[in-house]
Amino acid sequence: MPIDPALAFAAEVPPAHASWDADDVILYHLGIGAGINRATDPAELEYTYERNLKVLPSFGVIPVFDALLNMNSIDGIDVNFALVLHGEQDLELHRPIPVNGSIESRVRVAGLHDKGKAGLVVLEVESSDADGPLFTNRFSIFARGEGGFGGEPGPKPADAAPGRAPDAVVESPTMSDQALLYRLSGDKNPLHADPEFAAIAGFETPILHGLCTYGAACKGVVDEMLDGDVTKVARYQVRFSGVVFPGETIMTSMWDEGDRIVLTAATEERGDTVLSNAAVWLR
Amino acid sequence: MPIDPALAFAAEVPPAHASWDADDVILYHLGIGAGINRATDPAELEYTYERNLKVLPSFGVIPVFDALLNMNSIDGIDVNFALVLHGEQDLELHRPIPVNGSIESRVRVAGLHDKGKAGLVVLEVESSDADGPLFTNRFSIFARGEGGFGGEPGPKPADAAPGRAPDAVVESPTMSDQALLYRLSGDKNPLHADPEFAAIAGFETPILHGLCTYGAACKGVVDEMLDGDVTKVARYQVRFSGVVFPGETIMTSMWDEGDRIVLTAATEERGDTVLSNAAVWLR
Repeated sequence: MPIDPALAFAAEVPPAHASWDADDVILYHLGIGAGINRATDPAELEYTYERNLKVLPSFGVIPVFDALLNMNSIDGIDVNFALVLHGEQDLELHRPIPVNGSIESRVRVAGLHDKGKAGLVVLEVESSDADGPLFTNRFSIFARGEGGFGGEPGPKPADAAPGRAPDAVVESPTMSDQALLYRLSGDKNPLHADPEFAAIAGFETPILHGLCTYGAACKGVVDEMLDGDVTKVARYQVRFSGVVFPGETIMTSMWDEGDRIVLTAATEERGDTVLSNAAVWLR
Repeated sequence: MPIDPALAFAAEVPPAHASWDADDVILYHLGIGAGINRATDPAELEYTYERNLKVLPSFGVIPVFDALLNMNSIDGIDVNFALVLHGEQDLELHRPIPVNGSIESRVRVAGLHDKGKAGLVVLEVESSDADGPLFTNRFSIFARGEGGFGGEPGPKPADAAPGRAPDAVVESPTMSDQALLYRLSGDKNPLHADPEFAAIAGFETPILHGLCTYGAACKGVVDEMLDGDVTKVARYQVRFSGVVFPGETIMTSMWDEGDRIVLTAATEERGDTVLSNAAVWLR
C-alpha cells in the first residue's frame, strides 16, 4: 500500500541538519535570475555580492529540499517519483533568514488528501537555528496514481487574483542555461537539464524548476512592492500552474491587498500561467 | 624589504589541501561561459551536467588559487595587493583532471625577476592526488613598485602568434553578470564585482577575471581544435594582455602548430588583445 495514512501520520523522522553561507546565498540568487542585465546595479548587487548581502525569503526552501527527495523514507509513504508533481509551496518566515545559517529540521506528514487518481501529500518541515524557529516549509506534492486511500478532502486554496487590473507587473528574464545554474542549489532532477529525460516526460526541452520561478517572483515582489526589504516577508505561498522554459521571461502581476501582496505569474512568450493562488504576507 | 630573493627562494611553505566534486566543476564551467545560448546542446552538457561530465584542463587553476592570495605569507615576499597584476599563467597537466578530486599542493617561489619599477614573482604550485602528480601551476605576478632588488632578467615569453591567418576563430560570449558567477569558484577580488572598487582602480565597470578569459579560451580550443577531448591538453600557457568587460564576446584565434595550438584572444566589441603569447600543448 503506497500511501498508508495511519502509518504516515504516526511516522517519526530523524532530524536533518543543514548550513549555508554567503556563497550559497549568492549562487541561489544568481540561479533565480538576480543580476541578469543589471550586474552593476547597486540594488541588484545586494543579492549577488557579499557586501550588504541580503537573503531572499524564498531561499528558505533550499536548505530543506532534501526532505522532499527523502519522502519515501517516511513510513506509510511510497510514491513513484516519475509521477510526482510539486503542487504548492508554502513558506512561513518566523524571522529574516541570516546570510550564514545552521539549522535542524523536522519533517512530518501534515496532510494526506485523496484526489481519486492522485494522492496529495503535504510535507511540513520546521527548521530552527540556535535562536529558535526560523522557517516552516509546507511542500504539497501530487503523487499521480496514488489515490484511493480514503483520506480527507483537499486543503483550501490560497488567494485567487482580484478582478481588478494589477497594481504592478514585473518582468523577470531568465537565461537559456538558467536551470543548469539553479540546480547547483540542490534540485538535481534531470528533468531540468537532460533533453532526453525531458522528452520522455513530454517536454520539448528541459523545464525550469518551479521553485526557481517561485524565487524569481518573490524577488519581483520584494523589489517592486517592498522597496527591496526582504525582512518584510512573513509568508509566501504559491500554486504551481504551469511550466517555464529556460530563456523565457516571467511576468509577475501583483495586487496590494493591505496585509499581503497577491500575485500571479505567466510567461511573456506563451502567456501561460505558471504561478496562481499566490500571495506574499507582510510582517 | 618587500622582496628578498635570498629569503623567498629558501622559504618553506606548509602544504595546502583542496578537494572538489561535480558541482564545483559545473559551477566553474558555467562561470567561464559554458552553456550560454546552448543549454541543450549535448556537447555543451558534458560541461554543465553530471552525466558524462568532463573537466576542462583550465579548472586546474581553481583548487590552488589560494596560493596566490597567500603569497605574502611566504618569507621574503611582501607585496601591495592593490598594485599586483596577474601577468601570465602556465598550467601543466600531468594527467587529465578527475571530476572528483582531492589534492595536496606545495608552493615555492620559482622565479624573481627585477623589472626596475616592478618585481615579477613566479609562484610554482605542484599538486598531487593519491595517484601522484596531477598538475603544476605557475602564476607570474607583476608587483608594481617592488623592483630594485637585483634579481635575474625575465623568463622567455611563450609563442607569439604566427604571421599567417588563423586556422580558426571561435566566439565565446559572456554575460553581463559573468564575473559574479565566476567569482563563486574562489577569486573574490571586489575588482570583479564592485563598481566603486573598480572605479578606484580606473575601470568604468568591474572587469572579468583574467582566469575566466583563460578558461573561455581553453574551452574554445578544446571544442574547435580537439573535438571536445579535454584529455589531449598537456599544458596551457598565456600572457594576460588586456581586460574583458563582462558581457563582451571573447574572440579566440587559433593556429595549429603540430604539437601545440597557438592562440590569441581579443574582445569582439573593442578589438583589444586580452590573451597573447599563448599556447595549448597537446599530449
